[in-house]
Amino acid sequence: MGRIEINSIMNAFEFVKPDIQSMEELIREQVEDNHPELAIALDLLLSSGGKRVRPTITILVGKSLNADYQRVITMAAAIELLHTATLVHDDLIDGSLLRRGAPTLNSQWSPSATVLTGDFLFASAAKLASETNSIDIMKLFSKTLRTIVNGEVSQMFAIRCKPSIDEYYRRIYAKTASLFETSASAAGIISESDPAIIQSLAKFGREIGMAFQIIDDILDFNGDSAVLGKPIGSDLRQGLVTLPAQFFFADFQTHPLVKKVLEFGCLKDENEIKSLIEAICDSSAIEKSYSVAEEFIRKGITALTAIPETMERNMLTNLALSQVNRDR
Amino acid sequence: MGRIEINSIMNAFEFVKPDIQSMEELIREQVEDNHPELAIALDLLLSSGGKRVRPTITILVGKSLNADYQRVITMAAAIELLHTATLVHDDLIDGSLLRRGAPTLNSQWSPSATVLTGDFLFASAAKLASETNSIDIMKLFSKTLRTIVNGEVSQMFAIRCKPSIDEYYRRIYAKTASLFETSASAAGIISESDPAIIQSLAKFGREIGMAFQIIDDILDFNGDSAVLGKPIGSDLRQGLVTLPAQFFFADFQTHPLVKKVLEFGCLKDENEIKSLIEAICDSSAIEKSYSVAEEFIRKGITALTAIPETMERNMLTNLALSQVNRDR
Repeated sequence: MGRIEINSIMNAFEFVKPDIQSMEELIREQVEDNHPELAIALDLLLSSGGKRVRPTITILVGKSLNADYQRVITMAAAIELLHTATLVHDDLIDGSLLRRGAPTLNSQWSPSATVLTGDFLFASAAKLASETNSIDIMKLFSKTLRTIVNGEVSQMFAIRCKPSIDEYYRRIYAKTASLFETSASAAGIISESDPAIIQSLAKFGREIGMAFQIIDDILDFNGDSAVLGKPIGSDLRQGLVTLPAQFFFADFQTHPLVKKVLEFGCLKDENEIKSLIEAICDSSAIEKSYSVAEEFIRKGITALTAIPETMERNMLTNLALSQVNRDR
Repeated sequence: MGRIEINSIMNAFEFVKPDIQSMEELIREQVEDNHPELAIALDLLLSSGGKRVRPTITILVGKSLNADYQRVITMAAAIELLHTATLVHDDLIDGSLLRRGAPTLNSQWSPSATVLTGDFLFASAAKLASETNSIDIMKLFSKTLRTIVNGEVSQMFAIRCKPSIDEYYRRIYAKTASLFETSASAAGIISESDPAIIQSLAKFGREIGMAFQIIDDILDFNGDSAVLGKPIGSDLRQGLVTLPAQFFFADFQTHPLVKKVLEFGCLKDENEIKSLIEAICDSSAIEKSYSVAEEFIRKGITALTAIPETMERNMLTNLALSQVNRDR
């Protein structure tokens, strides 16, 4: 559909597979000597088929810059665990029963056990981050955690079904792009790169993270629920106006359902919700959203040229470009 | 009642009041530029009349060792915030409605808001700890957080109403003594003391922390619920066999209610629970528990003699001794 072309070089995810395995071993080691139920929970979470895109970025940036391998793997593990911890608390808060087709922890455990498992994962992520022996990493790590949680708090208290493009971009930065930013820049810090390089890496991660979340938000409209492993339209049902809906609401203000939402707030009738989702899918809002994501990806890739061209850098570029074509 | 005598020198809590105020200002600054509801929550939590015993230890140890003032205050703030974060999630998990006579956050907010507020406090505590610019502090901080959460997980999955003295000591170390240990030793790390001194400070904090929790557990039997600001006997009602109950169960195995618990598990009848609490209060179990607490305090005070005798060290000694006389 006219999406950006991708060079057919080796897939980044295939390339980092052994590194991701080392990372997962390190993650599993974190629960040894602790309560056995935590190991069970971690196993469930690790086997649930996440794409590991954040640690993949850390590892590829680290390899591009010849950063110390063990510290890079340790940081990658910290980032993946932090991400997992936020998902555990998020799913509990949203009452989500499925993620990537697998039952969420909160669908099987008590709220208490779910809260504490998330806390333990946060603590373990902090422990791993501290094992990089870099105070700059620790500062970045805790700043990112605060950004993510503050974003979740803002989202919780936000007025439902009220379009605001500024709020949307703020939200997806906090929710997703901030950790992508950290995934890339942390590897720069470990390699002791110049501040300007670290800034460029942060920009790369941030822009790619924005694109990543926009694609997620598009797939929540036009994706295949069987492939995604979760129902379609969940954002709209939660009252979150993501980018496709923002465009649709701005462009079709006379559409009866748009008028209804703008006047009375969230739709409650399931048929109306479905018909609004269909209308958005059939409109130019989807293409427009893809274009915005592509623009973020282009800016990210440009920022990445600050580091030397290596095979790993090319993989990062392709990883970024491939986002627009993913179906889950 | 024959408890250890305390020298009537200046009260430690009075002495550190200006420092605690600086610490509280620093804590309040952490919520600026974040979501306004977080500031409201933090205000509620800070004004709820905690004793600030942990940061008081950090500050007094820091002053004894001439540690950098700003770093000590920053660490004290990190410790108090970490403590507050664990209380927020604990009260949610236990469904507690009152703490220190004030409504808990979970009694007024949704579970989701309570979870996220706790997460934000964890993140802010980690941020402050990282601002001490010491990787050893960060390692200690994340280790302590893991210990506390792992202890809570073990407590949640533990069999109710089953006396085990080993499990009791493990639990109160994880729940309370580990953070006291960190409160004292962190100030030693900041002052760049010898490892042997830091070890002694850790021992001081650990022993005092054990005593502190035992006194809390005694007060849950013989305290005044109006002074405590929470109902009496809450541990036993939750199925937790604390030290007074451990002694009573060991010494009075033929007592009909003890036999009932050992055979059938937790009591359900409110009159039976009340009568068991009364029997424990009237028994030697309370005095025995005080003696154990005093022994921990003596060991803690001995460990503290590793640092030079200063006014602040004497205050720490008195602070430790005064634990057995507190009524809340």
